[in-house]
Amino acid sequence: MLTLPTYADVIVAAERIKGFAHRTPVLTSRTMNQEIGAEVFFKCENLQRMGAFKFRGAFNALSRFNERQRKAGVVTYSSGNHAQAIALSASLLGIPATIVMPNDAPAAKMAATRGYGGKVINYDRYTEDREKIGNDLAEKHGLTLIPPYDHPDVIAGQGTAAKELFEDVGELDALFVCLGGGGLLSGSALSTRALFPSCTLYGVEPEAGNDGQRSFRSGAIVHIDTPKTIADGAQTQHLGSYTFEIIRRDVDDILTVSDAQLVDCMRFFAERMKLVVEPTGCLGLAAARAMGGELKGKRVGVIVSGGNVDLDRFCSLLHS
Amino acid sequence: MLTLPTYADVIVAAERIKGFAHRTPVLTSRTMNQEIGAEVFFKCENLQRMGAFKFRGAFNALSRFNERQRKAGVVTYSSGNHAQAIALSASLLGIPATIVMPNDAPAAKMAATRGYGGKVINYDRYTEDREKIGNDLAEKHGLTLIPPYDHPDVIAGQGTAAKELFEDVGELDALFVCLGGGGLLSGSALSTRALFPSCTLYGVEPEAGNDGQRSFRSGAIVHIDTPKTIADGAQTQHLGSYTFEIIRRDVDDILTVSDAQLVDCMRFFAERMKLVVEPTGCLGLAAARAMGGELKGKRVGVIVSGGNVDLDRFCSLLHS
Repeated sequence: MLTLPTYADVIVAAERIKGFAHRTPVLTSRTMNQEIGAEVFFKCENLQRMGAFKFRGAFNALSRFNERQRKAGVVTYSSGNHAQAIALSASLLGIPATIVMPNDAPAAKMAATRGYGGKVINYDRYTEDREKIGNDLAEKHGLTLIPPYDHPDVIAGQGTAAKELFEDVGELDALFVCLGGGGLLSGSALSTRALFPSCTLYGVEPEAGNDGQRSFRSGAIVHIDTPKTIADGAQTQHLGSYTFEIIRRDVDDILTVSDAQLVDCMRFFAERMKLVVEPTGCLGLAAARAMGGELKGKRVGVIVSGGNVDLDRFCSLLHS
Repeated sequence: MLTLPTYADVIVAAERIKGFAHRTPVLTSRTMNQEIGAEVFFKCENLQRMGAFKFRGAFNALSRFNERQRKAGVVTYSSGNHAQAIALSASLLGIPATIVMPNDAPAAKMAATRGYGGKVINYDRYTEDREKIGNDLAEKHGLTLIPPYDHPDVIAGQGTAAKELFEDVGELDALFVCLGGGGLLSGSALSTRALFPSCTLYGVEPEAGNDGQRSFRSGAIVHIDTPKTIADGAQTQHLGSYTFEIIRRDVDDILTVSDAQLVDCMRFFAERMKLVVEPTGCLGLAAARAMGGELKGKRVGVIVSGGNVDLDRFCSLLHS
């Protein structure tokens, strides 16, 4: 039996990250309000430190380390935003960090992780198991493993984004949150159910990787192969034990969108809101736009999860 | 003898635009703080309505129209952000707007201006004089002409951006503001001298169009040919009568930067701060970066003026 995090944990996480994480702005667009016929509030986590909400959960988890854990250090596996979030948080807290990354990860991401002071250990993603490598390192060197999403402290930290959004704009009729492994969605669920229980909460996945939707509807965690989608932050193969329990208890539905819809939203964010948003960060808006008249007259929140996309890739996606 | 606007006019302008203009966020970047060795605060007017600070001055000016002026309408000439600012402000206030634009202006900009409800009148920029066309229209139809920068109400409106910045972050040692015709710089000067008189205030121009610097140093308005620079918002040929008087009284120095420095800053904003910033909006940061150690340990403000750049152009500039 898992002990799930609660909104009380989100409140404590908010205190811990204060002064370290940015309180990101909530932005609006008259153009999008007119298109959807609703009042839409964007919580801009692309403007968070290191460019994504992941900093919240990582910093919260590392803040809870005791003296022995701090000295020994943290280990994690990630090819994406969680790697940089752990490396940056660890450097701010003076904790040694080891990040297990595939040897074919983008050079820029490895450099960024090293730039924050993280020690990068490469593996071959076709022949080696990153979770096993992480666990072995943890055991051998007494490191504490902080996985990318399935951890109560990570979930509680991610819940602070929705908490801030509600504090800034008040009650919402609907909230759209992107879904990969479920850290942001389950954290958002804790804040939503505590603050405005009647708000309709949607998780949004790329249609190529709808394991979350299938899990939600079937009542058991569905595992899939790494999905082919431009939303690299949502290329997870399955929900976690903690995130699934919270999602199935607290989320109203899981929606899916196509890569083409994500590109349309990337273009909208750049052209009209002057924001660089990574494909995964477009999931929430893409689903809201696809709802047609259902949102008419409502107050709608969208969490924009991150902005970490190579500019070359950004430009080539917008040209495709 | 001109009656120059004062900070009292900025205060009243701030009241007028409240609820219509966004109070734009002030963002920071640890990376840039480390590079410059200072604490840098970015006032993000690229996140303003219609994508630039110009909305502030235009809305303020139109808000002061009397009944007769409202009914007859406003006219202006601009191929850039001021055109959209007037069109949008006029539509919000129910005032007819006529915008004189060159017939070779980008189709997107004409469409945006029409999209806000403005009536576009084209002219040939090689054979016709836009100021004369504007004045003739004003006279013939009883329209009120609101020029892009040399107008007390426009200047007072633009001054609200620096006012908000100071309110949000407190005292600054230095403030960097981009300079085209001088509306934003002279407005910022009013707020700076009223709130923190000892703050060093810099105007920043593209080096190809340094008429402002030459005017400032010689004590008389210098006219130049339309300068060749990617900073299209600063391709003005001369300062205005009002803006020059305020700038020479209140500004500490005018600096220049190259187009290559602007592109470096565009890339920085997009990669690290996830912001789309137009070349003109990069002037302030480019000058601050070029100052070397002079800013070490200081608190520095930078006004990011706008984000209106075609995505194709944005991407091609970043690839050049």
